[in-house]
Amino acid sequence: MTVPDELERLINAIEAASKEAASAARRHHLTLTKPPGSLGAVEDIGAQLAAIAGTAIPPLVEPAAIAVFAGDHGVRAEGVSPWPQEVTAQMVTNFCAGGAAINVIARANDLGLLVVNAGVATDLPDHPLLRNAPIRRGTGNLRVEAAMTRREAAAAVMLGVTTARELYASGCRCLLTGDMGIGNTTPSTALISSLTGVPPREITGRGTGIDDATLALKIAVIDDALARLDDLRPVDSLGVLAQIGGLEIAAITGLCLGAAEAQVPVIIDGVIALAGALVAVEVQPRVRDYMIAGHRSAEPASSVAIEHLGLRPVLELDLRLGEGSGAALAYPIVRAAARIMNEMATFEQAAIDSA
Amino acid sequence: MTVPDELERLINAIEAASKEAASAARRHHLTLTKPPGSLGAVEDIGAQLAAIAGTAIPPLVEPAAIAVFAGDHGVRAEGVSPWPQEVTAQMVTNFCAGGAAINVIARANDLGLLVVNAGVATDLPDHPLLRNAPIRRGTGNLRVEAAMTRREAAAAVMLGVTTARELYASGCRCLLTGDMGIGNTTPSTALISSLTGVPPREITGRGTGIDDATLALKIAVIDDALARLDDLRPVDSLGVLAQIGGLEIAAITGLCLGAAEAQVPVIIDGVIALAGALVAVEVQPRVRDYMIAGHRSAEPASSVAIEHLGLRPVLELDLRLGEGSGAALAYPIVRAAARIMNEMATFEQAAIDSA
Repeated sequence: MTVPDELERLINAIEAASKEAASAARRHHLTLTKPPGSLGAVEDIGAQLAAIAGTAIPPLVEPAAIAVFAGDHGVRAEGVSPWPQEVTAQMVTNFCAGGAAINVIARANDLGLLVVNAGVATDLPDHPLLRNAPIRRGTGNLRVEAAMTRREAAAAVMLGVTTARELYASGCRCLLTGDMGIGNTTPSTALISSLTGVPPREITGRGTGIDDATLALKIAVIDDALARLDDLRPVDSLGVLAQIGGLEIAAITGLCLGAAEAQVPVIIDGVIALAGALVAVEVQPRVRDYMIAGHRSAEPASSVAIEHLGLRPVLELDLRLGEGSGAALAYPIVRAAARIMNEMATFEQAAIDSA
Repeated sequence: MTVPDELERLINAIEAASKEAASAARRHHLTLTKPPGSLGAVEDIGAQLAAIAGTAIPPLVEPAAIAVFAGDHGVRAEGVSPWPQEVTAQMVTNFCAGGAAINVIARANDLGLLVVNAGVATDLPDHPLLRNAPIRRGTGNLRVEAAMTRREAAAAVMLGVTTARELYASGCRCLLTGDMGIGNTTPSTALISSLTGVPPREITGRGTGIDDATLALKIAVIDDALARLDDLRPVDSLGVLAQIGGLEIAAITGLCLGAAEAQVPVIIDGVIALAGALVAVEVQPRVRDYMIAGHRSAEPASSVAIEHLGLRPVLELDLRLGEGSGAALAYPIVRAAARIMNEMATFEQAAIDSA
C-alpha cells in the first residue's frame, strides 16, 4: 500500500517470529513433568510465545494491558444498529468509571486498561484513563462516501502504533485489542468481506442484536460500500481501510503493527479487532506471527477472518460484546502458557521416571 | 445404591439449585451495561452460580481451591499405561514441591492446592500440602477382580466429602477436582462406558499416549471388567464404583457431593473427574446443578460423559493431562462470570441510553 514514510519504515522493519525458537520450545516442553503434548493448545501458545521472543523459554507476558479504541460511524445514520450514537461516548465514560464488562474482566485478570478516543462524534472530557486523541469526529457514511481520507486512516493507524509503543515502554509484554463504536460491526464486516472475498450475505451478523429487516438493510449497506471499491481492491489496503473502515479499527491495525514491532504478542478480540488484524496482515504478513485469536465470536464474520488468518481461537463462548472482553477472558490461558514453560520442573529435576 | 448411613443422609439432604434465582440472574443481566446476551456462555455460568447460591446476584467464587486426589491402580499390571506405577508417588512429591503443571496454573490463577493421598501404592512422606489418608495401597486389578470393596469405595467417597467440607470451612467458595494415578484412564473409561451405555471400543482413548497395540489391549481389559458387572448394572452405583473404579475417582465423587452439600460450584476437570462426577449424579441427580465442566479433553470418553451430564465445557483446548489442569485453566472464566454480576454498572447507574 502507499503509506506515509514513518508507517512504511515500521512495516518494513517488522521481523518474522523465530521458527527455531518455536522448535526449541517444543523440545523444552518434552522435558517438563507431563506426558508429551498433554497440554494441547496451551503448548502451541507456548511455542508461539517462544517464537515471538526468539528464545526457547519465552518471557512472561506480564504485565499486560488492553487498549480500548473508541470511534463513531457515519453509517449509523442508515439505521444499521438499534443503539443511539451517543452510547459510544456514554460507554467511554462508563469505561473511565470502571463499570463496564471490560473493566471487571481486566481487574479480575490483572490487566491494565487504557481507553483511547480515536474518533468519537462528540467531545469527551479528559480523564486519567483516557487518551483523548480523536483523528476526526466520527467517520463518513461508508454506504455513500469514504469513511475517512487516506491521511486520516494513516493517522489512526499511527495512533494505534503509538499506543502500542507507550504500553510497551511502560512495561507491558502482551497487548490486547479492545473497541467501542456503535455500528462498528458494519465496517468490520465490510472489511472482512473485502479482504477475504466472502460475500456480505454469508458473513453479516446481528451485531448487538438486530431484527431480520435490519439485517437485510445492513447487508445492502455493505454491498453498496463494497461496490464503491472496485478500483481499489485488493492492491491498496490503506485505501480500503479509509473507504469502508473505521477510526478505532484503523487504530487496532496500528496496535497489531506496534506489537509486532516490539516483538510482543497481541491478543485479538472479536469481529472488529479481526477486521483491523486482517488489514495489518495485508500490509505485512509477518504480523500474523504475533497474533493470538482470543475467541471465536458469535458473529459469522469472526470465523471467516480467523480461518483466513490461520489462527486457532483460545475460547469459544459465543461472546459478541466487543470492548476487548474476549481477549481479556483469554488472557489467563496465555499467561499460564508462558508460566508453565518458565516454572514447571523437568523430569530430571523432579527425579521422575519417563514412559 | 446401598451406602453407609452417613453418606446416605448426605445424599438425601442435597437440594436442587434454585431455578427462580437463575431467572432472577438473567433479569439482572439485562440491566447491565451491555447488549442483552452478549456475554454468551459467561452469562449462562453466571445464572448457574446464582442458582447454586439461591440469589439473583451470586456471591464471588473466591477463594477457590483444587483438591488433587492420588491413587494407584492394580490394572496397571496389565500394561495399559507406558508409565511405571512409581510415577504416581513421584508426581505427588512434585505437587508438594510446586513443580507440576497444576502448581503453576494454580499460582497463576490464585487457586489453593491440596494434595490428597487417597490410595497410592507406596508410602508417602508427610508434607504440609499433603493430606495423607490412603484407604488402601492401590486398587485390585479390575480386569479380574474387584478394584476395592464396597466399604473401601464408601470410605474413599467420604474422604472426598470430608475434603470438600474442610475446604469450605477454610473459606473456599468454589472447588476444583484434580487427579493423579498412573493407569487411571482405564477405570475412568470403564465407569463412563458402564454408566452411559456407550461401548468401550467407541470411547477408549490413548490416555497419556499409547500405541495401537496397547489401545487394543486397553479395550479388551475394559470389556473384561464390564463383563464382571452384569448383575450390578445399573442399580448399584457404589457397587460399580467398587468393582471397576479407583480410589481417587471415588474421592472425586465425594468432592462433588460435598460441594453440592455446601451449595458451592465444583469445576470438573477431564475424563477421570467426569467418571467420578457421573457416579455422583447417578446417586443424586441434583448434584449436576452444582457442576461446571471445565473443559472437553482430547479423550473420547470426555465428550460422551459431558453430553450425558448435559453440560457445556468452558474450554476446548485438547488437554489430556489431568491433575485438575483443565478445571484450573477454566477457573478465571467462572470467576469473571461472578464478578461481572457483582461489579458491572447498570444502564441506570451509568446513565446510558438503551437500544
